[in-house]
Amino acid sequence: MKGLVLLFLTAATAAGLLVSTTPASGQGSGEAVPIFGIKIPPGYRDWKFVSVAHEEGNLHSIGAVLGNDTAYHAFHDGKLPFPDGSIIAALHYTHSPSAENDKVFGDPQSFVAGAPTNIQFMVKDSVKYASSGGWGYAHFDKDGKPGPEAAMKTCAPCHAKATRDHVFTKYAP
Amino acid sequence: MKGLVLLFLTAATAAGLLVSTTPASGQGSGEAVPIFGIKIPPGYRDWKFVSVAHEEGNLHSIGAVLGNDTAYHAFHDGKLPFPDGSIIAALHYTHSPSAENDKVFGDPQSFVAGAPTNIQFMVKDSVKYASSGGWGYAHFDKDGKPGPEAAMKTCAPCHAKATRDHVFTKYAP
Repeated sequence: MKGLVLLFLTAATAAGLLVSTTPASGQGSGEAVPIFGIKIPPGYRDWKFVSVAHEEGNLHSIGAVLGNDTAYHAFHDGKLPFPDGSIIAALHYTHSPSAENDKVFGDPQSFVAGAPTNIQFMVKDSVKYASSGGWGYAHFDKDGKPGPEAAMKTCAPCHAKATRDHVFTKYAP
Repeated sequence: MKGLVLLFLTAATAAGLLVSTTPASGQGSGEAVPIFGIKIPPGYRDWKFVSVAHEEGNLHSIGAVLGNDTAYHAFHDGKLPFPDGSIIAALHYTHSPSAENDKVFGDPQSFVAGAPTNIQFMVKDSVKYASSGGWGYAHFDKDGKPGPEAAMKTCAPCHAKATRDHVFTKYAP
């Protein structure tokens, strides 16, 4: 139940064997993930903000969940199930202490987004992804390399445990 | 150096004496803060995502920083100083453990955005706010009530210690 199973809640990194080729800086394209065939959606970095999350344990991750317009409106309106066309993005970073901020505050209390670790996506298509609850899943490391097949197989079974149409994140007002 | 001094890095709450009247749910308007005369900017909840932050100490806060188009492009491009017209929003929530997520993970490791605590803004106007480094500051509690004058006076001196045009937050790619 570790690693990519923690999709959308973690900063799990893809297998270290992967070679970096494509920057995951919101420009889209690149290679598609196994099983679900999803590439990095163009423009995702400019999508609207849904919520934030912080994962400890062995992850030490802080991240933001963004949604394309379809997903965002469903989150905002509490509309379930998510409509086809919804895409949810999770941007993960190291949960890093900020020496600059702590110096101003006078206490070691400030943690910020450090280096990017991975980006993950959920794509709603009730026909194409009928066998995985209507959602396709994707994981890309910090350089845009897709997660390996074995890891991608773990996404859907874990998300099936979420109580809001396979989505763990709730909208932050 | 506590309380509102920690603007944009904290979830400091405004004085508990304030009476709730205006929901701070991204609809704008409401009362203006003392000194700087800033109201909640309409539509701020839909602005683009800049970064995330987590404050411990006695704050237990998690938040997101968003920017209007002018501020966002300055963040993205690393353009300093920020141009006039830039508005930066900090949305703060309680840093709350997620029993639902932890149950799926099998470990107590997941923290999410809980109840909203406050929203804060920085507005760049190098003429109007010349005496405070070109920035006006605003703090509203969870119900949209402006922070008190004494607290608002602490914003600018603290932000003057930031090394990037009075802004602590860095763009998260």
